[in-house]
Amino acid sequence: MNSNTLTNENLLWIEGLKFNARGLIAAIAQDERDGTVLMMAWMNRESILRTLETGEAHYWSRSRAELWHKGATSGNVQKVKQFLYDCDRDTILIKVEQVGNVACHTGARSCFFNLVSIDPG
Amino acid sequence: MNSNTLTNENLLWIEGLKFNARGLIAAIAQDERDGTVLMMAWMNRESILRTLETGEAHYWSRSRAELWHKGATSGNVQKVKQFLYDCDRDTILIKVEQVGNVACHTGARSCFFNLVSIDPG
Repeated sequence: MNSNTLTNENLLWIEGLKFNARGLIAAIAQDERDGTVLMMAWMNRESILRTLETGEAHYWSRSRAELWHKGATSGNVQKVKQFLYDCDRDTILIKVEQVGNVACHTGARSCFFNLVSIDPG
Repeated sequence: MNSNTLTNENLLWIEGLKFNARGLIAAIAQDERDGTVLMMAWMNRESILRTLETGEAHYWSRSRAELWHKGATSGNVQKVKQFLYDCDRDTILIKVEQVGNVACHTGARSCFFNLVSIDPG
C-alpha cells in the first residue's frame, strides 16, 4: 500500500484498536510460508502506518524508545503479506516473508527457542 | 506434567520470566497441527503453574480479574503440546490441540479474523 492510499477513511480502523496506556499494541510476526511464530513485539500508531506504507514491518522499540524498522541494520527485514487484528482489537498478527530467514537478534530463526518440558500426567 | 514433578528446582525458569507491572506475561496460542495462530492472552505465575500441572491452557482474565481455565465452560479446552518462551523472556508460545476447533469467543476458529488490506506499492 503506498502512502497515497492511506486515506483518513480507510484508517478509521486504527482508531478502533485498543492501545495500552503507553500507546502500544502487541504484534505477532508469523512466517507466511510455514506458520512459524517468529517474534512478538509492540507497535504504536506510527509504526502501523509505516508498516502499511512501506510493506515492511516497523515496531516500537521499548528499550530504545524509538521507531524500529525491523532489519534496517541487519538486512533481515520482514515483508508483510497479511495484516490482521483480533476480535477484541488489542493484538495484531502480521504474516511475513522473513528475509534472511532470521528474525531473532540471537541469530535464531524464531525468538521462541526456549522449550519447557511438559509431561502431561 | 503432574504436580509432583513441579519441583522448586525445575520452576526456577519461571522466576526468570519478565512479568509486567501487573504480574502478567503475554501468551500466544498456536494450533499444533497447522500452525494457525489462535489467540493471544495473558498469564500470571498461577496460570503458568496450572497450565503445566493440568496440561490445559490457563490464562489470567484481565476483564474478570480471575484465573481463566480456557474452555472450562464451552468445553473448548486447549491441550498444551509444547510450551516455549522467547529470547528476552517476556512472551510465551504454547502449541495446542484446540478441542472443538474453536478458540474465539465469537465462535471463530481463530481470534485473528480482521484482515487489513495491504497493497504493497
